[in-house]
Amino acid sequence: MSGNTTGTIFKVTTWGESHGKAIGVVVDGCPPNIPLNESDIQEELNRRRPGRGQSSSPRKEEDMVEILSGTFEGKTTGTPISLMIRNRDVKSADYDHIRDIFRPGHGDITYYRKYAIRDYRGGGRASGRETAARVAAGAIAKKVIVRKGIEIVAYTRELGGIAAEQIILADIDRNSILCPDMNAAGKMENKLEEAKKMGDSIGGIVEILVRGCPPGLGEPVFDKIDADLAKALMSIGTVKGVEIGAGIQAARMSGSECNDYITPEGFATNNAGGILAGITNGDEIAIRVACKPISSIEKEQQTIDIHGKPATLSIKGRHDVCVIPRIIPVCEAMVSIVLADHLLRQGAISR
Amino acid sequence: MSGNTTGTIFKVTTWGESHGKAIGVVVDGCPPNIPLNESDIQEELNRRRPGRGQSSSPRKEEDMVEILSGTFEGKTTGTPISLMIRNRDVKSADYDHIRDIFRPGHGDITYYRKYAIRDYRGGGRASGRETAARVAAGAIAKKVIVRKGIEIVAYTRELGGIAAEQIILADIDRNSILCPDMNAAGKMENKLEEAKKMGDSIGGIVEILVRGCPPGLGEPVFDKIDADLAKALMSIGTVKGVEIGAGIQAARMSGSECNDYITPEGFATNNAGGILAGITNGDEIAIRVACKPISSIEKEQQTIDIHGKPATLSIKGRHDVCVIPRIIPVCEAMVSIVLADHLLRQGAISR
Amino acid sequence: MSGNTTGTIFKVTTWGESHGKAIGVVVDGCPPNIPLNESDIQEELNRRRPGRGQSSSPRKEEDMVEILSGTFEGKTTGTPISLMIRNRDVKSADYDHIRDIFRPGHGDITYYRKYAIRDYRGGGRASGRETAARVAAGAIAKKVIVRKGIEIVAYTRELGGIAAEQIILADIDRNSILCPDMNAAGKMENKLEEAKKMGDSIGGIVEILVRGCPPGLGEPVFDKIDADLAKALMSIGTVKGVEIGAGIQAARMSGSECNDYITPEGFATNNAGGILAGITNGDEIAIRVACKPISSIEKEQQTIDIHGKPATLSIKGRHDVCVIPRIIPVCEAMVSIVLADHLLRQGAISR
Amino acid sequence: MSGNTTGTIFKVTTWGESHGKAIGVVVDGCPPNIPLNESDIQEELNRRRPGRGQSSSPRKEEDMVEILSGTFEGKTTGTPISLMIRNRDVKSADYDHIRDIFRPGHGDITYYRKYAIRDYRGGGRASGRETAARVAAGAIAKKVIVRKGIEIVAYTRELGGIAAEQIILADIDRNSILCPDMNAAGKMENKLEEAKKMGDSIGGIVEILVRGCPPGLGEPVFDKIDADLAKALMSIGTVKGVEIGAGIQAARMSGSECNDYITPEGFATNNAGGILAGITNGDEIAIRVACKPISSIEKEQQTIDIHGKPATLSIKGRHDVCVIPRIIPVCEAMVSIVLADHLLRQGAISR
Repeated sequence: MSGNTTGTIFKVTTWGESHGKAIGVVVDGCPPNIPLNESDIQEELNRRRPGRGQSSSPRKEEDMVEILSGTFEGKTTGTPISLMIRNRDVKSADYDHIRDIFRPGHGDITYYRKYAIRDYRGGGRASGRETAARVAAGAIAKKVIVRKGIEIVAYTRELGGIAAEQIILADIDRNSILCPDMNAAGKMENKLEEAKKMGDSIGGIVEILVRGCPPGLGEPVFDKIDADLAKALMSIGTVKGVEIGAGIQAARMSGSECNDYITPEGFATNNAGGILAGITNGDEIAIRVACKPISSIEKEQQTIDIHGKPATLSIKGRHDVCVIPRIIPVCEAMVSIVLADHLLRQGAISR
Repeated sequence: MSGNTTGTIFKVTTWGESHGKAIGVVVDGCPPNIPLNESDIQEELNRRRPGRGQSSSPRKEEDMVEILSGTFEGKTTGTPISLMIRNRDVKSADYDHIRDIFRPGHGDITYYRKYAIRDYRGGGRASGRETAARVAAGAIAKKVIVRKGIEIVAYTRELGGIAAEQIILADIDRNSILCPDMNAAGKMENKLEEAKKMGDSIGGIVEILVRGCPPGLGEPVFDKIDADLAKALMSIGTVKGVEIGAGIQAARMSGSECNDYITPEGFATNNAGGILAGITNGDEIAIRVACKPISSIEKEQQTIDIHGKPATLSIKGRHDVCVIPRIIPVCEAMVSIVLADHLLRQGAISR
Repeated sequence: MSGNTTGTIFKVTTWGESHGKAIGVVVDGCPPNIPLNESDIQEELNRRRPGRGQSSSPRKEEDMVEILSGTFEGKTTGTPISLMIRNRDVKSADYDHIRDIFRPGHGDITYYRKYAIRDYRGGGRASGRETAARVAAGAIAKKVIVRKGIEIVAYTRELGGIAAEQIILADIDRNSILCPDMNAAGKMENKLEEAKKMGDSIGGIVEILVRGCPPGLGEPVFDKIDADLAKALMSIGTVKGVEIGAGIQAARMSGSECNDYITPEGFATNNAGGILAGITNGDEIAIRVACKPISSIEKEQQTIDIHGKPATLSIKGRHDVCVIPRIIPVCEAMVSIVLADHLLRQGAISR
Repeated sequence: MSGNTTGTIFKVTTWGESHGKAIGVVVDGCPPNIPLNESDIQEELNRRRPGRGQSSSPRKEEDMVEILSGTFEGKTTGTPISLMIRNRDVKSADYDHIRDIFRPGHGDITYYRKYAIRDYRGGGRASGRETAARVAAGAIAKKVIVRKGIEIVAYTRELGGIAAEQIILADIDRNSILCPDMNAAGKMENKLEEAKKMGDSIGGIVEILVRGCPPGLGEPVFDKIDADLAKALMSIGTVKGVEIGAGIQAARMSGSECNDYITPEGFATNNAGGILAGITNGDEIAIRVACKPISSIEKEQQTIDIHGKPATLSIKGRHDVCVIPRIIPVCEAMVSIVLADHLLRQGAISR
């Protein structure tokens, strides 16, 4: 139990259910004297809002964040920063029909097995809505890492089996998919439309790049930075795989291909993805996460109810067709939180 | 700093360098009254020994474990269990030539950047030898989980680009590769031989299956069991990717394909890999980890020395050609440690 | 940094400043299916309200608690319980005159030295108001421990140098001091009145008794239950000393006096205060904490401003004369939180 | 469970039983490049040896420490430092008569109730011998804090009811009691001799002073430095009370007496004991701990056996008459460990 906190020095604790009164997060361990306003956080939350692309649900989630503590006259004070987002668009009655039914692909059955009680409304704690709290905390983490020159960019690398063939970062914000390849983006949009018509959903791959990260971050042997990144990203409900650098392809390379030769100007290649022996080497950190298709689909599915009786289920409503691109700021947030924590951990050593 | 402990209740702390006096581990939080002898641990350590297959180095590492505390009359007492393995086959002079040179693919450069000091002999703390301590701790973790009927099996799924096409568990111990496909195993052996001749190394993929795991393990939202498994496995030096269940392929499925329908008899499929919303569902847990090729190769490589000057390097000696199959018991150990911890965490809730 | 969380399994994180928007607490790790309503928590908060005795300030602090997450249909769900208390009676302007002055006895100077920024209004994070969040969390902890038959009672043992000579628990609620000795209570009331007239404040001693605690709680060697109790109580701003059982008097005993002989019916005496080698022995746990006098006094004091210049200070307003009896529910809360955590920790072992 | 680690960044994990193979400690999180040799640690261990004063047992405990990892060429490397002390003077047969009997004042009964198994030889894990591992870790912690100018001195403040009336630090090492008052020391020696003849034991009070501590250490609200010091010291088996600064006397003061006025030259008094609101203020930290008399006495005592039957017990042998002065280096070690941890925690914030 008590798995709702992450981080060692920069500690993030999220709370809240999809259809409870509110969701929120407490960030403890943020250094003092960092300028921070609600608008800084709201900006990141807005990037997570549905409606940026056709892959998203038309629900209106205003997600207005409120800073309840930890700042004074526009700066952090070193005390815990408490953020709250009231839940507004709540129609719990919409979920009455799944009160006793386990939705395939969701945590309904496992929460019930674990706790012998569950808030079935909108997935309760297991809802994707919880990630809004992560994005809010990530906005603060970004403030911490940006001061050291660290920048994070993430985008859609693959969607519905269509892969970006080229990475033009400037193009990311020029399409609804947040894909760095305009041509692929067009095909992805069609794929989404198609899945929508079928009452089905699709998955995809997000790539996250970290630039400007100083060497030396990461704590061997268990808290290696790639280990902490893998955990942070795998803790996002939709993620089923995490790769660093060459990732799975590294398993198909020879040592002479995979090793990044070192030159006086830096590493000749970057199969390591910026991490050697769990410590950043100063090169770009490259991570890819595989996101499964959204589990809530209109297509009829076989399942059981809480009494073990067979049932069929068709989930109507305004669900997203794909977690991408909405999951992108969540990935960025988790990476920011890990980096902020490790930056501070390394700070402790250097005194 | 202080990243050498893993676990929340079942806590494992490893220590030791490749060419120091000894390596070891302290296991704190093991329940009392579990029968435990040195031979239980030695048996697991022997599975990690080189020489089982031709992929391994001919070095003699006896790895004799000594239990220093925490047991009484053959049973655990609930107090910390301290295990030590003396380093015997130490030839530090062998490493004099890399005293000032950073080996590509290794942590030499990042340890130096992080700590401004490094024990260069045999990789020091970053050596694969550290994993012997993990295997020793894993032997204790296995004792904890076996009591609840949990079993773990791991094997070579892919090596040098050659994949096992069928999974016949009974065949795993019938070949030096620990591959469940005898036909593929033969090809893999050839591949290893070939790489050895070239003075090169190769990578591969290990698959780990967990059977008999009760539902309800895993602590949302950050300590989900897949998140903790990903971290534990990614903390093994060689691992560059972790997949759960359908893994990366899930990103290419539709929701109707990927969702595991639920029947009164259980799940119809297992794309989830036994985990839903970060909690075990009682089905088989399936994990795959991608291992990069071993970084120490005889082939000449470009690098720099600690002064930033260019250098070339050819690493001679008795290095393994592939971490597989020696890494297999390490993967099992890490999975055992995570499961033991989560079993105890869930125990706390159920009182 | 990040010192705002306590507990290992039953984790309590408080946040909030005296004159910020709100204060609150997140309780993570509470077992599911425990009945919990806002009124359960409000009841404990009301016990901390000023105005129960003449020692307290006449400020109106309504302290209405709101449960924001973690319960469903009146029961805990095993997910984090977020509680919030809006700050209402806020007159920040009242504190303008101490903006640049360090109040003696307060954390003004140390917060400033530590963080180089401070929310000076009402003491900010260092305000006694933060303890309301502890009491709220303690109300949940009590629910956890009461299920196991554990009961906690606390009272004024000494105040302004006047000690209770007899302990009649039934009398505690019969006087404004919460003293178990009616005769002493009368003298204490006079002492308080006297100090008030002098513009001064006084200190005292609170005694906490825990009954019905099962044997076996406490985790040697560092997380002994007396060690965790001492930490929890010493973390209350006003506390300068903690004693267990015979406490400081034990230092003046001989072994034959101090040892509690064991009989088939139980311990003959209880100098140990219910704890042996850091583990509960099933006997009554007895703890005493020494509370210093309140630092905010009307009497003129010498101090300096943030520029190091000498200054004089007379703190007018509606401050309490003594933290006792308002601190009593805070002590109970901290003890409850420690016991709940250790109860769950012991639960993990027993599976 | 898993209570054998203390610290957040500077992490100390002790292991070992009195009559097992060895005892030891792993220190994780020590900064790199600090000169460290076995003799540095041995020197501290020697201060804990019996035989310095007549209060101690004549047993020969060589306590030779071995550094097994974490240093290279005489310097720390930032990796875990593993220390081991082999147990030599082991006569387990001496303890056969207490195999089934619970010694009053000891943890025998509580360990048995908690774990349902216990290593009865010499108290097992609950033995005072475990504190040797603390002293070893403390020697490393001292290295960390001395670099910042922090110095710790501890001495016997009271013994068998006789209090030091004056504190002349130079006199501490001039008597076997380590008392800063030569006159009182003489009386204490007589008191010890007397108790010895009676087959009894006595208790006392140790005072610890910390000088040169920078302001700003301590992490509100739960990890206040006084809270962490109280926990660390209360975790020593013999300690039944902890006071900071004026301590219990603060409860008998008025606010105007207790508040330390602030002048441009510093604090006018030091009732706070160097800590305000849980953060160091730069002044001397003053702590007193009350030690109960040693529980092992020759005088006959009433008790029960593990079957609940009445029994009598007279513990013969070479037991100490008082934990003082041998406990003094243990107190210093615990304070050093807390300060090293908080120094590094504050370092993280300041980056």
